[in-house]
Amino acid sequence: MTRTEPAGLPLGDDFHLYDTTLRDGAQREGISYSVADKLAVARLLDELGVGFIEGGWPGALPKDTEFFARAADGELILKHAALVAFGSTRKAGTTAAEDAQVRALLDSRAPVVTLVAKSDRRHIERALRVDVDEACAMVADTVSFLVGEGRRVFLDAEHFFDGYAFDPDTSLRVLEAGFTAGADVVVLCDTNGGQLPLGIAETVREVAARTGFRLGIHCQDDTSCAVANSIAAVQAGATHVQCTANGYGERAGNADLFAVTGNLVAKLGMDVLPTGGAAELTRVSHALAEIANIAPDTHQAYVGSSAFAHKAGLHASAIKVDPLLYNHIDPSSVGNDMRVLVTEMAGRASLELKGRELGVDLAGRPEAVTSVVAKVKELEAEGWSFEAADASLELLLREEVDGPAEPPFTLESYRVVLDHRGDGEVISEATVKVHVAGERVIATAEGNGPVHALDAALRKALSPSLSWLDSVELSDYKVRILPSHPGSDAVTRVLLKSSDGDQEWTTVGVHGSIVEASWLALCDALVHKSMRA
Amino acid sequence: MTRTEPAGLPLGDDFHLYDTTLRDGAQREGISYSVADKLAVARLLDELGVGFIEGGWPGALPKDTEFFARAADGELILKHAALVAFGSTRKAGTTAAEDAQVRALLDSRAPVVTLVAKSDRRHIERALRVDVDEACAMVADTVSFLVGEGRRVFLDAEHFFDGYAFDPDTSLRVLEAGFTAGADVVVLCDTNGGQLPLGIAETVREVAARTGFRLGIHCQDDTSCAVANSIAAVQAGATHVQCTANGYGERAGNADLFAVTGNLVAKLGMDVLPTGGAAELTRVSHALAEIANIAPDTHQAYVGSSAFAHKAGLHASAIKVDPLLYNHIDPSSVGNDMRVLVTEMAGRASLELKGRELGVDLAGRPEAVTSVVAKVKELEAEGWSFEAADASLELLLREEVDGPAEPPFTLESYRVVLDHRGDGEVISEATVKVHVAGERVIATAEGNGPVHALDAALRKALSPSLSWLDSVELSDYKVRILPSHPGSDAVTRVLLKSSDGDQEWTTVGVHGSIVEASWLALCDALVHKSMRA
Repeated sequence: MTRTEPAGLPLGDDFHLYDTTLRDGAQREGISYSVADKLAVARLLDELGVGFIEGGWPGALPKDTEFFARAADGELILKHAALVAFGSTRKAGTTAAEDAQVRALLDSRAPVVTLVAKSDRRHIERALRVDVDEACAMVADTVSFLVGEGRRVFLDAEHFFDGYAFDPDTSLRVLEAGFTAGADVVVLCDTNGGQLPLGIAETVREVAARTGFRLGIHCQDDTSCAVANSIAAVQAGATHVQCTANGYGERAGNADLFAVTGNLVAKLGMDVLPTGGAAELTRVSHALAEIANIAPDTHQAYVGSSAFAHKAGLHASAIKVDPLLYNHIDPSSVGNDMRVLVTEMAGRASLELKGRELGVDLAGRPEAVTSVVAKVKELEAEGWSFEAADASLELLLREEVDGPAEPPFTLESYRVVLDHRGDGEVISEATVKVHVAGERVIATAEGNGPVHALDAALRKALSPSLSWLDSVELSDYKVRILPSHPGSDAVTRVLLKSSDGDQEWTTVGVHGSIVEASWLALCDALVHKSMRA
Repeated sequence: MTRTEPAGLPLGDDFHLYDTTLRDGAQREGISYSVADKLAVARLLDELGVGFIEGGWPGALPKDTEFFARAADGELILKHAALVAFGSTRKAGTTAAEDAQVRALLDSRAPVVTLVAKSDRRHIERALRVDVDEACAMVADTVSFLVGEGRRVFLDAEHFFDGYAFDPDTSLRVLEAGFTAGADVVVLCDTNGGQLPLGIAETVREVAARTGFRLGIHCQDDTSCAVANSIAAVQAGATHVQCTANGYGERAGNADLFAVTGNLVAKLGMDVLPTGGAAELTRVSHALAEIANIAPDTHQAYVGSSAFAHKAGLHASAIKVDPLLYNHIDPSSVGNDMRVLVTEMAGRASLELKGRELGVDLAGRPEAVTSVVAKVKELEAEGWSFEAADASLELLLREEVDGPAEPPFTLESYRVVLDHRGDGEVISEATVKVHVAGERVIATAEGNGPVHALDAALRKALSPSLSWLDSVELSDYKVRILPSHPGSDAVTRVLLKSSDGDQEWTTVGVHGSIVEASWLALCDALVHKSMRA
């Protein structure tokens, strides 16, 4: 079994930054992670440096069971984080050892388990339909069984704040049942999200004083105070804070990992991330939005693309004097940029950095940088986005520095025909006419859909001439429809991830037609590969 | 001149709900209000029942000058709110009476003026480039001039919290200069948005104790705590709170009027709105998003369309027992609704709730519920998702309860041709063959892309026979590529939102081909509409 504590973090086990994007975050309307998505999310969270990653609810959801199995079989190697399985305590009137759900938590092979338990007497009596004694026994039993099996256990006390206000003794008894049985942390959950910071701070302080237990906090955002409530709880003594990426979650969502972390680091001076972690906040936030297929919130605190954008004429001249007079922190400390007045500067700086990262030498080429910045701006205004499409950006940079590359093939034309026939069958067929290795080649192929057919026809045309083509696979394909702006039609943006078994690279295409947008991304992907082949 | 106090509000002048959407909110990237927009925004805010509406900065922005002129000339009749003009104090080395900007505030004919003044010594010395004495004189002079002219004056103390932490005496002197000269309220502004609630509460309490002045609060959202900070300030003694609709504003935005108001009413029990006002929060929020031309945040606290949406199977059966155990407030109290999302995680209980919500009676039809649950699970395993597609789910439910509906048309076949021609032009063309109103109709149309062309051809074929078709528009279109599972190909899921100007409904389609998936969603959308037409 892997470790039960976060590794290599400055605060070690003393403070837990705990992420539940993969379980509670997945409750957000519209999110539906595949197992591959879940693995990718966990890797990004670990890169950032959270201490605990709650991966899902094994036994309750088949996808989550598969995720834990694949993680334990070596598909997920975590540098900093410990992996956590989430589940409920045993059912009433049975034993933990006999409970199939509890068994599934063991079978997940996750070294840490977070158990959820009701801690509001009304929920115990009306939803669970047991008495408080049995509810406490269910907690104590399940915790001690899992601890006995070598697991580290945290206890999520559901509806704690509402329950504590209604009947504090019951809520405290539930905490005590868990802590006495061996839970390391009892997590006070504002499950309905109705709390405010001053009240949270008061309750956390009071519970800490009355129990002496190690306390955690889990906040929902129904009063728009989840981040503030989490921070207030930490200031009042909680040393374990549960968040989700970009605040994803049911209803109004959860406490946003990036804002909570930004506040802990920049405002409370707590080293909750490994060295360099804070500067990854913006990148990881945007990458996780991509995987969730949710447009990033441009105005999100710390990491939004507008979080340090200044429009106010009022401040225009003064910002030039001293930007820090007008930003609450240095944007680069969280990997973000100040924009608008110094867009040029920020754009240039990040482009130069990016060039270095991609191995394109822009040092001493100020005119090339100017020209790429202008081109990127123009394309982004049309809906292109290079944030996730490194390979397309690299092609732009190289074209500016080295001149246009010799493409591995050129297109004469393509035609895609989609038939929904009278007998109900749906057929997608594509024909391409291309020039490759001095010859004109025509090829036709069928596919599941228009893009698949086009890809198949292109491969058929090219693979006799391009030996490396067979190794290239599409590993991911994402589509976003960009809303139309006044005076323009909606366009489609396609992000294509390709792999040759060794490396992965992402390209982008934008067009009114999804098929042409896909074609553009596909061409970039092949040109990029040919430069390395 | 019109009134200087809010009218007809339960708390009268004792508590100020102050809106600055039209000035500070308009700093948000992407917002550009016309004068007509501004008048419409002000009317909606007044309907809701805010006490003060800051309309803009007359003299600095021509549109704002025109807004105040038209408002004063009778185009804006306010029932509850007093109108406020925003501006800065006189320039250094002149008198208020001679300052053109101050004169413009008088010329606006607004009965209330909010003056902004720097209250951080670093800003006074480095941005304003005057000494503290002159800064205080500028404040005192301008306030007493405007008060002498019969205006009610509030003072926005810019950068107050940062300034107070750096040099409290200077910041207090600025407040004193304003208050002594006749300002009614001094507003402590967290201009850079870097504060947290416990700190805000402490500073407000301290300043109140040291000065005895009437205090206001203005928070930016750079720590994601603007709402919490505003509420903490009120709990610490502030009686004037400045917000913007939906939190619009520069960078991460401002404190959201709807969340702040929701919290004041539902959590602090303060009657800040006229009778019935709270139930307007959701409607006004969405209407203001329309005018700003910004998609509403579906997960916004209190007013978002998902703010009371439940997905978790964990809770669905208990929600039936008592919805208030799982919502922090009654959604209808803020004009919102509870929704239940039907997903793989949910079962019979959520489907029965959903049926109730959609007006499909499933009580006493256990076999129908069983059959729909089985069908939903089967479809979701293929990649369908009904949690956002209420209209498609309703069709499934109705088919089970009432038998198959008579479709408004039937498809014989369609063909879509996508050409990337030799001259580089990209053309999408669709032909449909359908049977409608007893006739066979063939129609062909072009579009930007395949789906657009198909939609256009279908409309061409059907609209002569279906009178209601012209009112139906696609209002949103989302595409998600679902990764292939072992043994199956990747499929495309399309979510289509349609509108007839009166109602909106969402349908879903899934297929290997994006065009067929879109077709399926389109058909559901039209069948759904025809059942109501």
